[in-house]
Amino acid sequence: MAAPPQPRLGRRFVQQLADGDNVEEVYLCTDKQMRANRNGNLYLQLELRDRTGAISARLWNVGEPVIRSFEAGDFLQVKGKVQLFQGALQMILNAVERLPTGKADLADFLPHTEKDVSKLYERLRFFLLRLGNPHLRALAECFLMDQDFVGAFCRAPAGVRQHHAYVGGLLEHVVTLMEGADRLAPLYPEIDRDLLLMGVFLHDIGKVRELTYDRSFGYSDEGQLVGHLVIGVEMLNEQVGRTSDLTGERFPTELLLRLKHLILSHHGTYEFGSPKLPMTPEAIALHHLDNFDAKVHRFTRLIREDGNEGSTWTPYDQSLDRRLFKGGRDGPADENGDGE
Amino acid sequence: MAAPPQPRLGRRFVQQLADGDNVEEVYLCTDKQMRANRNGNLYLQLELRDRTGAISARLWNVGEPVIRSFEAGDFLQVKGKVQLFQGALQMILNAVERLPTGKADLADFLPHTEKDVSKLYERLRFFLLRLGNPHLRALAECFLMDQDFVGAFCRAPAGVRQHHAYVGGLLEHVVTLMEGADRLAPLYPEIDRDLLLMGVFLHDIGKVRELTYDRSFGYSDEGQLVGHLVIGVEMLNEQVGRTSDLTGERFPTELLLRLKHLILSHHGTYEFGSPKLPMTPEAIALHHLDNFDAKVHRFTRLIREDGNEGSTWTPYDQSLDRRLFKGGRDGPADENGDGE
Amino acid sequence: MAAPPQPRLGRRFVQQLADGDNVEEVYLCTDKQMRANRNGNLYLQLELRDRTGAISARLWNVGEPVIRSFEAGDFLQVKGKVQLFQGALQMILNAVERLPTGKADLADFLPHTEKDVSKLYERLRFFLLRLGNPHLRALAECFLMDQDFVGAFCRAPAGVRQHHAYVGGLLEHVVTLMEGADRLAPLYPEIDRDLLLMGVFLHDIGKVRELTYDRSFGYSDEGQLVGHLVIGVEMLNEQVGRTSDLTGERFPTELLLRLKHLILSHHGTYEFGSPKLPMTPEAIALHHLDNFDAKVHRFTRLIREDGNEGSTWTPYDQSLDRRLFKGGRDGPADENGDGE
Amino acid sequence: MAAPPQPRLGRRFVQQLADGDNVEEVYLCTDKQMRANRNGNLYLQLELRDRTGAISARLWNVGEPVIRSFEAGDFLQVKGKVQLFQGALQMILNAVERLPTGKADLADFLPHTEKDVSKLYERLRFFLLRLGNPHLRALAECFLMDQDFVGAFCRAPAGVRQHHAYVGGLLEHVVTLMEGADRLAPLYPEIDRDLLLMGVFLHDIGKVRELTYDRSFGYSDEGQLVGHLVIGVEMLNEQVGRTSDLTGERFPTELLLRLKHLILSHHGTYEFGSPKLPMTPEAIALHHLDNFDAKVHRFTRLIREDGNEGSTWTPYDQSLDRRLFKGGRDGPADENGDGE
Amino acid sequence: MAAPPQPRLGRRFVQQLADGDNVEEVYLCTDKQMRANRNGNLYLQLELRDRTGAISARLWNVGEPVIRSFEAGDFLQVKGKVQLFQGALQMILNAVERLPTGKADLADFLPHTEKDVSKLYERLRFFLLRLGNPHLRALAECFLMDQDFVGAFCRAPAGVRQHHAYVGGLLEHVVTLMEGADRLAPLYPEIDRDLLLMGVFLHDIGKVRELTYDRSFGYSDEGQLVGHLVIGVEMLNEQVGRTSDLTGERFPTELLLRLKHLILSHHGTYEFGSPKLPMTPEAIALHHLDNFDAKVHRFTRLIREDGNEGSTWTPYDQSLDRRLFKGGRDGPADENGDGE
Amino acid sequence: MAAPPQPRLGRRFVQQLADGDNVEEVYLCTDKQMRANRNGNLYLQLELRDRTGAISARLWNVGEPVIRSFEAGDFLQVKGKVQLFQGALQMILNAVERLPTGKADLADFLPHTEKDVSKLYERLRFFLLRLGNPHLRALAECFLMDQDFVGAFCRAPAGVRQHHAYVGGLLEHVVTLMEGADRLAPLYPEIDRDLLLMGVFLHDIGKVRELTYDRSFGYSDEGQLVGHLVIGVEMLNEQVGRTSDLTGERFPTELLLRLKHLILSHHGTYEFGSPKLPMTPEAIALHHLDNFDAKVHRFTRLIREDGNEGSTWTPYDQSLDRRLFKGGRDGPADENGDGE
Repeated sequence: MAAPPQPRLGRRFVQQLADGDNVEEVYLCTDKQMRANRNGNLYLQLELRDRTGAISARLWNVGEPVIRSFEAGDFLQVKGKVQLFQGALQMILNAVERLPTGKADLADFLPHTEKDVSKLYERLRFFLLRLGNPHLRALAECFLMDQDFVGAFCRAPAGVRQHHAYVGGLLEHVVTLMEGADRLAPLYPEIDRDLLLMGVFLHDIGKVRELTYDRSFGYSDEGQLVGHLVIGVEMLNEQVGRTSDLTGERFPTELLLRLKHLILSHHGTYEFGSPKLPMTPEAIALHHLDNFDAKVHRFTRLIREDGNEGSTWTPYDQSLDRRLFKGGRDGPADENGDGE
Repeated sequence: MAAPPQPRLGRRFVQQLADGDNVEEVYLCTDKQMRANRNGNLYLQLELRDRTGAISARLWNVGEPVIRSFEAGDFLQVKGKVQLFQGALQMILNAVERLPTGKADLADFLPHTEKDVSKLYERLRFFLLRLGNPHLRALAECFLMDQDFVGAFCRAPAGVRQHHAYVGGLLEHVVTLMEGADRLAPLYPEIDRDLLLMGVFLHDIGKVRELTYDRSFGYSDEGQLVGHLVIGVEMLNEQVGRTSDLTGERFPTELLLRLKHLILSHHGTYEFGSPKLPMTPEAIALHHLDNFDAKVHRFTRLIREDGNEGSTWTPYDQSLDRRLFKGGRDGPADENGDGE
Repeated sequence: MAAPPQPRLGRRFVQQLADGDNVEEVYLCTDKQMRANRNGNLYLQLELRDRTGAISARLWNVGEPVIRSFEAGDFLQVKGKVQLFQGALQMILNAVERLPTGKADLADFLPHTEKDVSKLYERLRFFLLRLGNPHLRALAECFLMDQDFVGAFCRAPAGVRQHHAYVGGLLEHVVTLMEGADRLAPLYPEIDRDLLLMGVFLHDIGKVRELTYDRSFGYSDEGQLVGHLVIGVEMLNEQVGRTSDLTGERFPTELLLRLKHLILSHHGTYEFGSPKLPMTPEAIALHHLDNFDAKVHRFTRLIREDGNEGSTWTPYDQSLDRRLFKGGRDGPADENGDGE
Repeated sequence: MAAPPQPRLGRRFVQQLADGDNVEEVYLCTDKQMRANRNGNLYLQLELRDRTGAISARLWNVGEPVIRSFEAGDFLQVKGKVQLFQGALQMILNAVERLPTGKADLADFLPHTEKDVSKLYERLRFFLLRLGNPHLRALAECFLMDQDFVGAFCRAPAGVRQHHAYVGGLLEHVVTLMEGADRLAPLYPEIDRDLLLMGVFLHDIGKVRELTYDRSFGYSDEGQLVGHLVIGVEMLNEQVGRTSDLTGERFPTELLLRLKHLILSHHGTYEFGSPKLPMTPEAIALHHLDNFDAKVHRFTRLIREDGNEGSTWTPYDQSLDRRLFKGGRDGPADENGDGE
Repeated sequence: MAAPPQPRLGRRFVQQLADGDNVEEVYLCTDKQMRANRNGNLYLQLELRDRTGAISARLWNVGEPVIRSFEAGDFLQVKGKVQLFQGALQMILNAVERLPTGKADLADFLPHTEKDVSKLYERLRFFLLRLGNPHLRALAECFLMDQDFVGAFCRAPAGVRQHHAYVGGLLEHVVTLMEGADRLAPLYPEIDRDLLLMGVFLHDIGKVRELTYDRSFGYSDEGQLVGHLVIGVEMLNEQVGRTSDLTGERFPTELLLRLKHLILSHHGTYEFGSPKLPMTPEAIALHHLDNFDAKVHRFTRLIREDGNEGSTWTPYDQSLDRRLFKGGRDGPADENGDGE
Repeated sequence: MAAPPQPRLGRRFVQQLADGDNVEEVYLCTDKQMRANRNGNLYLQLELRDRTGAISARLWNVGEPVIRSFEAGDFLQVKGKVQLFQGALQMILNAVERLPTGKADLADFLPHTEKDVSKLYERLRFFLLRLGNPHLRALAECFLMDQDFVGAFCRAPAGVRQHHAYVGGLLEHVVTLMEGADRLAPLYPEIDRDLLLMGVFLHDIGKVRELTYDRSFGYSDEGQLVGHLVIGVEMLNEQVGRTSDLTGERFPTELLLRLKHLILSHHGTYEFGSPKLPMTPEAIALHHLDNFDAKVHRFTRLIREDGNEGSTWTPYDQSLDRRLFKGGRDGPADENGDGE
């Protein structure tokens, strides 16, 4: 997140550390290496991390009991001093202690949406519970009644690296898409608005099982072997059977096929992992809308987070295969200005 | 257009002809071949066309003066009788006469947007004249003061075959995009709304010179050799010099580069003929929004115009490389439940 | 199939018709067009078909009741005479009558594997019921106990056009793959043989719902919108829950993921519609084995069925993007020398 | 090779070295750099290697005569002590001496198939000398009588990096393919078994000249400029003329074309360097069988050699563009187990 | 060739036939179909061809002896009358007789270079016999002493359809390339001129065996299964052994590799069938020079031969994936100004 | 440049520095980093560069005023001593002073063509002023009269990295192409020589604005956002209006389209950034000729500049995706020699 971490009382974030600071704080240990100095004495070289960044740390003259007391992946209560070394800050540690599981506040260790999750969720409910099609509305209710699902859906990121890669990112992405779909739908009367909104809701639900987002962001085995498109269809199959309790009717066959198709085709082409090309108006609309939001989010974020004021361009980004134009020091707003 | 041609008094459209009709009407001759029958007598085999379709026509026993009196591409005043031959209608002609240039009402011969062009144009002016950035607003005014440009912009199709392939299609496409950009922009505060709207206006202006749309839709020599992206930049260069008369200032250099970049990159990738990839937030937004409108328009039109009720699918479409799903006889609305 | 249709008593196959024959037989009408002759009299131009080929047919001077009495797609009892017209045979009909649904013997109208389906099915059972892994064996039993599934699995073709495009083709393809997997597995001790064989069984099960194979071969709506890979995973999910009745244990999580992955990745690459690349030894083995069988089947069939003795090459095949080499009249065996 | 190097008496392999060891042994020097320490004294930084791995080595305070006495690529008799430095082992050398050419036992420096080469070769002869086609059998005999060829064929690896990248790898790959072809051929009666087996034998023979495998694996000039496909055809041309001495007949023209085609097309597509697509059943069979063996070998090896027990996945492999799934600690065998 | 066939005494070329002509002439029969008219009488529908074009021909009321007396591919002595039918000319035949093999003058039936073949050949000898490198000069002499090779090299076309598709086309293409290489070489002193010129000579020699050019242009079995790149290397191998008789030395190894590489890499990329990318300066030079000549030849020929004066563009050309611009009626010369 | 820098009196180029040298010289500072040593004292780590290479430099114990006195990108007058450190040379500085803008001789800091720029320019004028077409000749004169353009055209490189990446490279590239076009044109009489030569002159003119070449080579904002193809068309539009002063006539419309098309299509395909494929003979000729020169230049330069005598191959080059063959120690000339 580009925004400064909202400082909570007492927590010293990595981004706040300065040369000479004495620190007593909990960090996530993400790398641990045993080394020997020139005299053959062993020391530990660690990487400590929270959601604002990472810092190297060194613990001199360690013995086996300390070495064995924790692993990379553990949360550590550390005590030490920050110093400048070869142009960068590092921490010289006096003591480390493994924190028992569950004691760390995960919110400190994973980046988080800047938006209010409960408001986003309310907005999601607002759209879903007002769907005109009774079957789709019932289907949405089934999902919303599933507490485990709702909890995961509000926590999952939308991706590991690319766009919305933070806690709450999936929810934020979906709600933005819903706002967009809601605004564009009236311009295209031949688009089935309810179907499109339901597609927006469902298209990435598989990510709650595809991704892991407890200590750091990654992929589950299921995520890599099956993928969120097919997982999404499985989750849809699980909920759709329950709708008849609410509607008193069987969920329409063709409508269910259209929903599955929306999920499976939303990457738009085979090379991006969709096993089916979009073949309905709502499917092609969802694909392009999703792409619009993801790419605009990606572009604005790369520009916002680029700290290098010496260039009008961001560094080369491999996955986009391009650099982005940031423009003049005063930015585009300046060009528009009335006072010029 | 799927809608039936609004019948004007007296005009007999091709689509309205029936076996046995006697016809006196003007058609565009789009093919002309001289043939000999078994006895060696010459006859003319013609294709006659208006905006509703085409019909074969035959003129028996012609001499050289008639043969030389007109060419394919001319409008012909014809007299003849419609008959069924080998399962299709054809016209047996008694007389043909070349119509002097300018006498035919072109609206009868080219498909036309179903929307009201003057209302679309008013909407375009509404958006452009309310742009906050004075340079962009002045640029828009320069374009709108150019009567030749405005006339062509309101007549040009957006394409020859793919989407919005009818008179007024370019204007309709641009105005729909403006409505969309206007609705989505508030969701993305880091997007420069004025820049995006100006990009929407400019992105396809080169089509007024790339395409021909007098008798039928096609490409001009300039269109094929230079293309509407570069023509658009040329047209922008021609107008941008005049803005200082309105603003009293030189048009900002960086702003001009951003506009050119919006035009040149809007196809999104090299393989679709953009010499530059989108490298600003507004450029990537324009590309995806343009794609959204073009593809949704294409999908809904193919489904709407497909007359074959015997299949839930449209025929295979080569350029999309897929068939589209039309669904049940009663359409998607039907799926949504009992009372509807 | 290249083999001559085994003539049943009384049935006159299209391939057996000759100039001058009088015919009374049932054919599938696959095209029906009303036309008018020079005098304006209506006649019907039909295409009649059985599994050996197609023939044009004409019914002169028809009135509306006859015209309305049947549609393309119906089976017709016809009476007529065969004659040579413009270098090809056609049938001049005296009478046609629509056959009630269910009266036609479908085996006459769809091509069929030349192998014995019941023997193929026994071989399938042989392999599946001897699997060493109790969970996989139980899963196989669940499928085999499902009569509807078994019936469809033994009837479905493996494809509409490409390879094994005939009734029983799916079963034949799967059993050949099982034989191959069974023979190759001992050469690769690190391959889990049971897992590979189960993957062979499951990889195309979705085709029983993806394809239609009642009157002619085609795709179901579900087949086009969802596809046999995802349908296969759905069918696996439906059966896997029942295995605990047989084993007394829950089906192992990782084993289930591996099975889903085998199904989803067996096309090998994204561009062929797999949403996941093969990431286990069994998945890559299945992909290449499947490809081996499909391509060798395709090549040998194209060569065998090519009737043109005037060329050592088959015609250009678009989907393979090549012609195939048939070689000398006597085939490869002949090259090997006189003494054989 | 994952298997531990079979320790020979006296040889200290790199993999066996431990902190504090005194070493007198021969290693291949694969990198040599002269450096100066803070006091300006020169020292040599070397990389020493045998078939089990590599280790850094340092020789302090060297003068010009020593520096000039050897080059990277030489075998060195070294004397030194192993120590831990910055988390890794390195060797501090007291003495180095260049070993005269031919004195080193190459088997210690290049990885080697774990299989028995003489048994593999016997199996190759078994298959080739039992071919039914007398011309193909005679051709095989000509190759087998060529001692230089046989020697090289038994030593060459099948590749530099990808699959079977060890001494004897080519032979192992070919014999495994022969076993496979022999087992699959009966399932496809239209495949010419003799032709397929001969294709298996010939398809990679060019590798004996394309690759270098004396000190390390690499490409010869001829290998890079011409490639093993065309070299293979050249080698075939050299031997085929001699078959008439054995058969008393000219080698059949078409059969020779089919053999050349098998060699040239076995990579299957242009982008993998085949100048011709497979156009015979045997050619397409060879291509897919070759691919099956190479890929399964690659997958199982990557999984077997991955030492990281902390992940269920191998690291990302660039040429495969994926990670591979290793699964649970107890491996797939566990899932099958009866004892569960 | 667009130029009118130089009329020889007595020969009536297809292009010269007019309505009403009585004809006695030899044509190549390229298609033969037996048909029946409305009364069931058999007639033959033929296609007759010489190097200027093709015409339909009909022989009424034929009996079996005539039908069996010839096949498509034979030269026929025909007698008949030309008439206009359905807008095209056709020939009504009275008599046809198969011409014995070897009696037809092939020059009448295949298009031919407009240039003087013996002058082209002299120019080829001029360049080759003046090569400075004695080994390359000796190699050239070996080829030139091979009468069969020279005969074929002077007759072969350079392709079946694309560029230089006429008798003598290969020679014309090679000589033009030699002139070009001879002119460009002095601008690039680091290019080995002799090597480049020898590469020009050798790059397409394989076409003399890849193509067939006796009655019509096509591919030989060897051409399709092996291809002219590898055939060229084989032909080089056959001649290179003889050079030592002329030079008294062994042909240099590296020089031979460079020649093979020039042949194999001249298509420039894998997708165009080169098994190796160009990796020497001469190889990349040859590739681009070859491409220059082939493409310029193709473009100018398509424009020259396009007869349609109604358009400034040629029709769409599938293999080029574009139309070509012909420009104004008076052509490019006209643009250059009045006084010229 | 491979050639040694021609040493000017007094200038010590980076390539000339040796261990122990005392230096007083101006260098371009291309990197500047502040670091702290173990004692917390600050020092500056710099990269100093001229056109012969780069060297690391260190300034110990610096205070804020010095740190703030210059930036990366400035020219510095430095005083220091060269020493060997960890195998490489570095400079220990005693004093640095920022040179005022304009005081440095840029020729010392950017690589330069080895050819004589004024002679190249004369050759360019020679060709352009002898064009036969008066409009093209007038257009050339307009460009040559524009002093700013001529100055930039003679200084610009032809690229940042690939070919002709040195001051004067663009001019050298264009003049070589003109020589080539002048020599090849007579071989292709259907090519309009004047048009081709003018295309050669114009094709890369946009590079004078696309690239920056004052201190180092890079891309301007305009270069990245618009690109040299479209900039070239803009520059052409600016000059073409002035030709009528010289000719007394309007520049012909079609001729102008042809020129624009030559510029826009000269990259040959979409993926290389041409928005149009070549559609005229001159355009396809220009594309291939440009490619010939660029690639041959690239290949010969990579081989010439490769200093590694231990290999017959250059290192792998990523953008070419290959290594190049250098061949035997004595080079290709040796193979040809009679004196062997």
